[in-house]
Amino acid sequence: MSKQRVLTGITTTGTPHLGNYVGAIRPAIRSSERDDAQSFYFLADYHALIKCQDPEQVHQSTREIAATWLALGLNTDKAVFYRQSDIPEIPELCWLLTCMAAKGLMNRAHAYKAAVAANMEAGEDPDFGVTMGLYSYPVLMAADILMFNANEVPVGKDQIQHVEMARDIAARFNHHYGDHFVLPEAKVDDHVAVLQGLDGRKMSKSYNNTIPLFLPEKKLKKHINKIKTNLLEPGDPKDPDDSTVFQIWQAFATPEQTDEMRTAFAEGIAWGEAKKQLFELVNGQLGEARERYEALLANPTHIEEVLQAGAEKARKESREFIGKLREAVGIRPIR
Amino acid sequence: MSKQRVLTGITTTGTPHLGNYVGAIRPAIRSSERDDAQSFYFLADYHALIKCQDPEQVHQSTREIAATWLALGLNTDKAVFYRQSDIPEIPELCWLLTCMAAKGLMNRAHAYKAAVAANMEAGEDPDFGVTMGLYSYPVLMAADILMFNANEVPVGKDQIQHVEMARDIAARFNHHYGDHFVLPEAKVDDHVAVLQGLDGRKMSKSYNNTIPLFLPEKKLKKHINKIKTNLLEPGDPKDPDDSTVFQIWQAFATPEQTDEMRTAFAEGIAWGEAKKQLFELVNGQLGEARERYEALLANPTHIEEVLQAGAEKARKESREFIGKLREAVGIRPIR
Repeated sequence: MSKQRVLTGITTTGTPHLGNYVGAIRPAIRSSERDDAQSFYFLADYHALIKCQDPEQVHQSTREIAATWLALGLNTDKAVFYRQSDIPEIPELCWLLTCMAAKGLMNRAHAYKAAVAANMEAGEDPDFGVTMGLYSYPVLMAADILMFNANEVPVGKDQIQHVEMARDIAARFNHHYGDHFVLPEAKVDDHVAVLQGLDGRKMSKSYNNTIPLFLPEKKLKKHINKIKTNLLEPGDPKDPDDSTVFQIWQAFATPEQTDEMRTAFAEGIAWGEAKKQLFELVNGQLGEARERYEALLANPTHIEEVLQAGAEKARKESREFIGKLREAVGIRPIR
Repeated sequence: MSKQRVLTGITTTGTPHLGNYVGAIRPAIRSSERDDAQSFYFLADYHALIKCQDPEQVHQSTREIAATWLALGLNTDKAVFYRQSDIPEIPELCWLLTCMAAKGLMNRAHAYKAAVAANMEAGEDPDFGVTMGLYSYPVLMAADILMFNANEVPVGKDQIQHVEMARDIAARFNHHYGDHFVLPEAKVDDHVAVLQGLDGRKMSKSYNNTIPLFLPEKKLKKHINKIKTNLLEPGDPKDPDDSTVFQIWQAFATPEQTDEMRTAFAEGIAWGEAKKQLFELVNGQLGEARERYEALLANPTHIEEVLQAGAEKARKESREFIGKLREAVGIRPIR
């Protein structure tokens, strides 16, 4: 039986932070070691262009994210790791799927509906400030998934709908042109940790409350010291379940370490001490990867080589597959 | 001063007919001989997919249209003649432009508005049966035009809006990312003949009233004999300006021949005789090209070679240009 194909895209608009690491990167790298699956990871730079018109930021983020995944030990011999924009077959497939996708389907996309609702509330035209990129995004995502006939797409709950749209478009293509596409399934892992940020809300670039993943040691310490705590004094028992410090601890610690910290909270550990231990834990776990990260960024051509090799691996498939799809729709050499 | 660039796309969904010849192909081939211009002609097969889900028809039409233009003497040393789907930079640029195009712009496209109006009238959902292909078509057309920085786009009046949209999208891209695109201009030639079909309405595939361009002699004769006329007898004076026979005559004849026929109408030429002369005129003008057409279709690999050579010529530009555009938006090698 052929392996399940698992596909994950990473939009290249920010600097990876602890929340990305715990919630996405760490589980993805672990899952890439599964023997029953073939993993595809790609840097979604075409998607980045929807949100970000700052070329330096797109470029910088691509570099940092690629270095991050490599530094954290993604096995690129096993997984296929590539940059979306290195696969010209993807935008081509995107057009073929555009011709198959119902406009009505896009009207129902959550992101688009949210933009319309916000405009209506502000008394603007419903489509004010909406680009075709935002609107057509699910078609490009369908192309990403269908290009490699992925079976599984691990996503957050907010993205389930997009995978369903990819299924819908794939089914319609299959109906018109024969069975070419596997119907992909969204896979939501409810156990994935959602990390809190410095202010206790979900750690997210948009809240400006993140702890970047590979901060230099001193800065990491500073950031951890900034985590919001309450006014309880040393010696006062503290509620771990109400504490961002504890929540981050838990995401990095073994179950034993977690139990120990829970006890320490009950016994009134000082916030300063708890943060010091948290820094040591996180720093200990990330230290080696950070060294690799810095070495990679100091020698970025190596990153480019790895991505080129990944693209070559991916294109062995995409080139052949797009040939079949072109033939199917009637784009054929004259003979 | 560099030459004006003139770009024309030909959607590959039908068999060329006399109306296409007189209204589009003949003037385009003539204009490709202009010394002050560089002409680009392309077979718009990605566009064909919007309307046509019959792969055989898309393929067949591509073959026939390519053979037609070559048989009619398009000088492919001078003009750049290529198939849209041979230029992978076009769908890629299409995505870059998608991220720049305002959705509100697409809402105003005539073709989309017509579809919505028809749906509303039928009591359907406004977007019933509308694909993203129909809706996004102006973005792909912008990519076709901007890929080669065309200055002039000869179009019918119904297409002026699409060229204006391409200008709008180009200006927005230039605004965000620096001056990369020439702003194209629609060029409407009011003198281009619109041919009548067998039933006297505009000759058009959708009316099923066409005379295919390269019918074998006998069939051409039969078709011309089917042109609708009135019941006036031989000897009765006839009104040339009310006659499809005369209108087609005029599109092929010299001014002298036109005057002669006008006189013949006044003198009561029989319909049968007028049609016979029309057949001879058209057949005489198309006979040699038809032989070349048939020879080309008998040796289709030659057509493919010509298209490949054209694609190579086009891609010399598109490859370099997309490289600059990628750099501009932030899609860059890591270095």
